[in-house]
Amino acid sequence: MGLERVFSYTLGKETGVSAELVRKDFSQFGIKGNRRGGYDIDDLLTAMERIFGKARVQNVIIVGMGNFGKALSQYKSFREGKVNVVAGFDIDPGKRNRKFSIPVYDMDHMSDVIEAFDVSVAILAVPEFAAQEMTDVLVRNGIKGILNLAPVLLKVPDDVNVNNVNIMVELERLMYHSGVLK
Amino acid sequence: MGLERVFSYTLGKETGVSAELVRKDFSQFGIKGNRRGGYDIDDLLTAMERIFGKARVQNVIIVGMGNFGKALSQYKSFREGKVNVVAGFDIDPGKRNRKFSIPVYDMDHMSDVIEAFDVSVAILAVPEFAAQEMTDVLVRNGIKGILNLAPVLLKVPDDVNVNNVNIMVELERLMYHSGVLK
Repeated sequence: MGLERVFSYTLGKETGVSAELVRKDFSQFGIKGNRRGGYDIDDLLTAMERIFGKARVQNVIIVGMGNFGKALSQYKSFREGKVNVVAGFDIDPGKRNRKFSIPVYDMDHMSDVIEAFDVSVAILAVPEFAAQEMTDVLVRNGIKGILNLAPVLLKVPDDVNVNNVNIMVELERLMYHSGVLK
Repeated sequence: MGLERVFSYTLGKETGVSAELVRKDFSQFGIKGNRRGGYDIDDLLTAMERIFGKARVQNVIIVGMGNFGKALSQYKSFREGKVNVVAGFDIDPGKRNRKFSIPVYDMDHMSDVIEAFDVSVAILAVPEFAAQEMTDVLVRNGIKGILNLAPVLLKVPDDVNVNNVNIMVELERLMYHSGVLK
């Protein structure tokens, strides 16, 4: 568009956060506005490349190759975002014979895969009833971060992080705020 | 287990929130502890049945029948949680000929389906590049709540709610906090 500078106000408006937050975030990463006001777009792009480029490709595994596990094994944003799904795991032998875009193993192979690919983070996409048991297996195998898609509060040691994505809760919240459940 | 009473402390510990929050939430719904301390378990179950039973079955639609759309069309938690996926929509005619557990239509059928099933909430599972355009179609057709799985900030009128589920962001946050990206 031929623009040379951009303002925190404009960036905030486009991304839905305040101009103050834009300036604060930039400042924390050492990005400074220029004398003429706003940010030099070329400088900004270079700085962002530096920050996000730092993240080397991360190997992750998926436990549970049902519909969500399968969808995540082919998730385009992962490939673009330097996340490399190296393997899936499922207790169902039928799953292991099916065609997936990643190799699918039984749980006995987990420690080998985690070691071979230096995996620290796992995506848990198993049914509710199996979630805690599979979590215990992951923790025993040295996993330090779990993205949990099961609608269960997992119990883990203090040095393991869990991030919950509960689509049902998000949908219920939406229905509530949209007045449907009021 | 033969127990008659339960304490906010115990419920908080099991669910990962503070005892204060348990008491505050219960109090907001008119649930009171009893004279002997704690909550009468039978009273609590009756009250919860009353609160959650209020939510009648909600009809929702899914826009975008790729891997995630398909997974959500068969999502077990929806069926258990009084969410009824009545139809999917996709611009790809190939998708409409495939076997899904729900009927899949082109966009031209959207207004009819929304009216016939009194749909207020839609799940948006299209690729990033199509998300805003499909959002505009949903808004034009009277949708008031959108569960957005695309990694895009959607622009909607003030009377429309958007709830974003961004699995990539959640995974990156997890990798950061697990020290992988530090």
